[in-house]
Amino acid sequence: MSKFKFELDHIGIAVSELDGGGEFYKALGLNENSREEVTSEKVKTSFFPLGNRVNIELLEGTNPESPIAKYLDKRGPGIHHICLRVQHLDELVAQLKEKNVQLINEVPKDGAHHCRVVFIHPKATGGVLIELSEKKGS
Amino acid sequence: MSKFKFELDHIGIAVSELDGGGEFYKALGLNENSREEVTSEKVKTSFFPLGNRVNIELLEGTNPESPIAKYLDKRGPGIHHICLRVQHLDELVAQLKEKNVQLINEVPKDGAHHCRVVFIHPKATGGVLIELSEKKGS
Repeated sequence: MSKFKFELDHIGIAVSELDGGGEFYKALGLNENSREEVTSEKVKTSFFPLGNRVNIELLEGTNPESPIAKYLDKRGPGIHHICLRVQHLDELVAQLKEKNVQLINEVPKDGAHHCRVVFIHPKATGGVLIELSEKKGS
Repeated sequence: MSKFKFELDHIGIAVSELDGGGEFYKALGLNENSREEVTSEKVKTSFFPLGNRVNIELLEGTNPESPIAKYLDKRGPGIHHICLRVQHLDELVAQLKEKNVQLINEVPKDGAHHCRVVFIHPKATGGVLIELSEKKGS
């Protein structure tokens, strides 16, 4: 699978609300770049860019049934997932399926920043929820 | 604090042992770059580089009393911490102390890859253990 290249796109952090959750990162000296609601995931997101094309993404659930609200209920605030930026997402997903890697969604869905995303189940990775994200039209 | 710049250096992932923990990342197509034991933290580490100067760092405790072994007992395998690459670490630590940000160690200690590291307590960040790392001699 060496044809695939991976960059870390962001670290997704579950917070009870974006304003309070962002205070530490602002105190550190980071700037909040943008906010966006991702209706498919029932979340509002806030992005704090780091220097090497990596973002801290804060995630606030917009509904008690959202995955983020459920995560907060179960584990409290903290790192929810990491996202790898990829190309050739469909081909990569096909190869992961061939290797019986357990995916949460096999069909890419809409993520933040005009991306198509697929989630790999933490059972397949050793406890880490991994999002694979491809820019639409890339 | 805008004089400080931050890059994501690595994502630290607790695993019960490095060989098994690395299987998924190898299946994804990543290469294991190096292994190192950090005696001060009672861990063995394994690094898988991503494209944008970010590493996946797998962490195996070398002792039942190591922080990683205790983390595994309590929460199971998964993301343990994130590490930000910084310069002017001493000055940054002084400013964090001024802002009453709770640190785990105020005096930098030896980390992997010839770095000096300070950990910020998850209570100060919203549930995320954050390592600040400065290359020695930088």
